[in-house]
Amino acid sequence: MTGSTLSPTERTRVRLHPERAVYDREVMYRILDEALVCHVGVVVDGAPRVLPTAIVRIGDFAYIHGSPANQSLAALAAGAPACITVTLIDSIVAGRSGFGMSMDYRSVMIFAAAEKIVDPGEKERLVAAFIEDICPGHQVRAPKPKEIAATLFVRFPLTEASVKIRNQGVVDPEEDYRLDTWSGVIPLQLTAGEPRNCSALKHGIAVPDYAKNYRRGR
Amino acid sequence: MTGSTLSPTERTRVRLHPERAVYDREVMYRILDEALVCHVGVVVDGAPRVLPTAIVRIGDFAYIHGSPANQSLAALAAGAPACITVTLIDSIVAGRSGFGMSMDYRSVMIFAAAEKIVDPGEKERLVAAFIEDICPGHQVRAPKPKEIAATLFVRFPLTEASVKIRNQGVVDPEEDYRLDTWSGVIPLQLTAGEPRNCSALKHGIAVPDYAKNYRRGR
Repeated sequence: MTGSTLSPTERTRVRLHPERAVYDREVMYRILDEALVCHVGVVVDGAPRVLPTAIVRIGDFAYIHGSPANQSLAALAAGAPACITVTLIDSIVAGRSGFGMSMDYRSVMIFAAAEKIVDPGEKERLVAAFIEDICPGHQVRAPKPKEIAATLFVRFPLTEASVKIRNQGVVDPEEDYRLDTWSGVIPLQLTAGEPRNCSALKHGIAVPDYAKNYRRGR
Repeated sequence: MTGSTLSPTERTRVRLHPERAVYDREVMYRILDEALVCHVGVVVDGAPRVLPTAIVRIGDFAYIHGSPANQSLAALAAGAPACITVTLIDSIVAGRSGFGMSMDYRSVMIFAAAEKIVDPGEKERLVAAFIEDICPGHQVRAPKPKEIAATLFVRFPLTEASVKIRNQGVVDPEEDYRLDTWSGVIPLQLTAGEPRNCSALKHGIAVPDYAKNYRRGR
């Protein structure tokens, strides 16, 4: 688990398009850190569920949180096997055929069982980590003990994980390159607009720079 | 299944934050149509997997496709129960406490077993539908029979599904509104940058308007 390289297992070895596989942990960290949300798969009552939720990485663990009344989160906290997928779409790839259409993307898939966080001090530090991840620079009041108690935090070790990156642009069959069709990539980025004040904002508080200049990733 | 309203089942009834539940099919259609990708949960070898993949909706079905060698897709095509989640993040909600931090979002969760598409003519129409969904206006050469044969298409009926929308902005406890903290929302949008031509593009082909003006959703 330590070290800078991911060791593939039977289910994290990238078989289809092995050229898209990346086994560098630093690359995995950057994808997880850029993402706002992950999609967590867990089996509840014999059927899969996919929960979208905020994700924070600290060291070699990914953290999620929510209400203990959430059935998927409760199943995770009880130790059910999970698959956590993070996907960043970087561009539309417009090839010259349907099968030349694609997207450039960066994705991480983690297989793990969750560990429940029980220490109130650690939960309080995690609240701060989620805020700093979702909105870096934003300062808030300290959490109350009852808020900490009412929130379930779990973490997943980044032990069994795969990273796939497609960054190739157009890859068409050779004979398609002579077609009179436009072909190229359209880059996509999650961008922030003008912040809007809370309608109950106290008079005289200016929009801070971290909100005006908000951006994810690159 | 027909009609304009989603009828909740035991697992699609929104219990947490019922105020976020929407049972209007048209709203579900718009979310599915704006999304480029979904995350599909399926059980493989007893453990959940979450596959990110392009999604297209036609009528009351959601379609995905890929290689038959993909284990998750093969399990789906064999009829394994699936959960398909689509998530659009609309804004960062910066409240005055950790528990006031949130995101405004629109999401759909579908429970279904896949139906495999076998008719080559239908698969060819689906290729066209994926292109028109991913890059509206883009014209390509017709698919070859071997390309059609090599691609697995499945569809999920939009029968058992839930829609959740958070569009509330900041909701802080009453006593937090007097804090001297900035609070508000930072809107997020997936935006397109300047298209880049395929390096093998034939001389004299201009970047088309649909690529220059690419946008998703609103």
